Amino acid sequence: MADYPLADVTIVDLTRVLAGPYCTMLLADLGARVIKVERPGRGDDARHIGPFLNGHSAYFASVNRGKESIDLDFESENDRLLLDRLLDRADVLVENFKGGTLARLGYGWPVLHERWPRLVYAAISGFGHTGPYAERPAYDMIVQAMGGIMSITGPEQDDPSQTDSRAPTRVGTSVGDLTAGLFGAIGILSALHDRERTGEGRKVDVSMLDCQVAILENALARYFATGTAPGPLGARHPSITPFGAFAAADGHLVIAAGNDQLFVRLCEVLGSPALAADARFATNGARTEHESELKGALQARLAGATVAVWLDRLASVGVPCGPINDVAAVVHDPQVRARSMVLPLDDPELPGLHVAGNPVKMSGLPEPGFRRRAPRLGEHRVGLVAETNPDA
Amino acid sequence: MADYPLADVTIVDLTRVLAGPYCTMLLADLGARVIKVERPGRGDDARHIGPFLNGHSAYFASVNRGKESIDLDFESENDRLLLDRLLDRADVLVENFKGGTLARLGYGWPVLHERWPRLVYAAISGFGHTGPYAERPAYDMIVQAMGGIMSITGPEQDDPSQTDSRAPTRVGTSVGDLTAGLFGAIGILSALHDRERTGEGRKVDVSMLDCQVAILENALARYFATGTAPGPLGARHPSITPFGAFAAADGHLVIAAGNDQLFVRLCEVLGSPALAADARFATNGARTEHESELKGALQARLAGATVAVWLDRLASVGVPCGPINDVAAVVHDPQVRARSMVLPLDDPELPGLHVAGNPVKMSGLPEPGFRRRAPRLGEHRVGLVAETNPDA
Repeated sequence: MADYPLADVTIVDLTRVLAGPYCTMLLADLGARVIKVERPGRGDDARHIGPFLNGHSAYFASVNRGKESIDLDFESENDRLLLDRLLDRADVLVENFKGGTLARLGYGWPVLHERWPRLVYAAISGFGHTGPYAERPAYDMIVQAMGGIMSITGPEQDDPSQTDSRAPTRVGTSVGDLTAGLFGAIGILSALHDRERTGEGRKVDVSMLDCQVAILENALARYFATGTAPGPLGARHPSITPFGAFAAADGHLVIAAGNDQLFVRLCEVLGSPALAADARFATNGARTEHESELKGALQARLAGATVAVWLDRLASVGVPCGPINDVAAVVHDPQVRARSMVLPLDDPELPGLHVAGNPVKMSGLPEPGFRRRAPRLGEHRVGLVAETNPDA
Repeated sequence: MADYPLADVTIVDLTRVLAGPYCTMLLADLGARVIKVERPGRGDDARHIGPFLNGHSAYFASVNRGKESIDLDFESENDRLLLDRLLDRADVLVENFKGGTLARLGYGWPVLHERWPRLVYAAISGFGHTGPYAERPAYDMIVQAMGGIMSITGPEQDDPSQTDSRAPTRVGTSVGDLTAGLFGAIGILSALHDRERTGEGRKVDVSMLDCQVAILENALARYFATGTAPGPLGARHPSITPFGAFAAADGHLVIAAGNDQLFVRLCEVLGSPALAADARFATNGARTEHESELKGALQARLAGATVAVWLDRLASVGVPCGPINDVAAVVHDPQVRARSMVLPLDDPELPGLHVAGNPVKMSGLPEPGFRRRAPRLGEHRVGLVAETNPDA
């Protein structure tokens, strides 16, 4: 593992379900050794969440690839001693219990920092370890709702004041969990960087709700600039036009003419150079103001050919465009394949299961043709007991 | 800045618009010095994207807070010399040009690595620096479409085979850009960690499309487990039930009963303990199979009281739940306020503009009551010329 940038990092991983396991998966992909600590008997809740293949959770297998597993009972003195021995050797401890849980188990930050001053401790929770909601439970769905992203995702409303009549739309993946895992990894790596200078670990406290606010992007700016809360816009961008999904003869495609020059080229490809000369469409601001008229004019032309034809013509002149791929198309896309972004697991009990690759490509970083499988519950206990035995 | 974990890191930042600037903003929030290099005259394209306040882009101001700006003309020999002097002092170079652009300007990885062996070079692009699409342009909209997330986001379809008849739905924020910025930061920090051991920098190559695949989460597992590409599901989770948005008397709320115990408590709060005893709803698997019947039964009870009443009752017994907040509600939420997640900029020309805080909370990390403003174009050029002058 000498070429993995995190080859010298050992992580004791108490996380369950998604946000925490995704965080440690990212670090494992970059070479960290991740020792996953699970409850005896049942293990991580995600082992019991579908889809299942041959009795194994494909969901669990995906986000826990390449980790080791040890089952530990926090009520057992012997097992707590074993946890302490693991922490003696660890650089990082990660957990995603509800706020306050780990402290009640006797491993609060003051205790951890006194006993293991170099240890970095990362806590990922629904609402963080401070503030009025600190001990409330959360799941992805809760923070997607409370953090605002659901209010700006979904079909465009004819009457934006009727917000309660529409069916709410969630982002189709658990961005509440995934972004917390990503920010958690950034916090851990920053604390490890700092430790090189100071010799001391830090506590990292990441809240899923905070992370949703951190990805509101220009919705926040729009609210403060206009005083009005933005609503969902279907597939179009709020302040760049034309930038969204359009219907062609046989389906939809996306076109992103992000500046005036690209808009002129788009109009030429569509055989409507006059559109580019129209004062209503002369600048991005004007185009955004007249978005629905422009969309009508563009779609009148786009209806004359298929998605595949338009993608060819647009790409040939450098107008950013693309198909709207379903997951089957994604996994067969030649670029996705060329970048090793969908790879098999080397798990004989889960034949055919592929998982996402590591998107952090790096010079010198090995790019394996498969991903190492997730551990069975407690699979590495015997080895870890022997490895940490002080009499050995 | 002694308590900032990245206080010793200097970044030369050639990025524009969103993915790259978001990456360097995250690192600036953690203490890195970010020197933003912009085109003379026009600067970063984002300076010209709304919403605007007093003639300044609130969008630009949000993602470039706390950075320095120098305007450099790559065609000018004098300015290239100045760029080289900045790189002499830098730990990291970040850019998000289209693949191949920086190499054509004379700063490809072999050149950079030979001249500045300790420099970490991060390139964020639409499709990455390898593979058949390496030199294609992209924007967020394109990779959201090509990466599959649009195919699983939106209203649930009665007839999933009619995928082309529905209006596509984009995630309401630019997750194509933002996730690339997050993975880019993880790559940069991993390479800096590695440099402590090896003394050498690495090239980090992050593709926005790759990052979309990396956040497909269980949609990939579902595809490989079932052979069928999953479609959008409105606001519910594909394999956990009940877990989604529900209508109460005066609007929607979200409820996430992630396990059997929570489901029993939910049924008790609703006054329907018999539901928990119904064989159709006895396990998560059974509930997911009978999702629409269960939703009907739950909503029949929920219709009897308001969102506020149900949130109180559910929270009191620990069932995860929450309101669906719009951006106005988010910025006034007491937890968001307590965690400093919406803060003013100290910019007298953008009065009232607030931006997202830093979600990476860390022991010893200062938590300012405001965020430092974004730079005017070229604001720090004179100082940087003096600072890098070899004769000084």
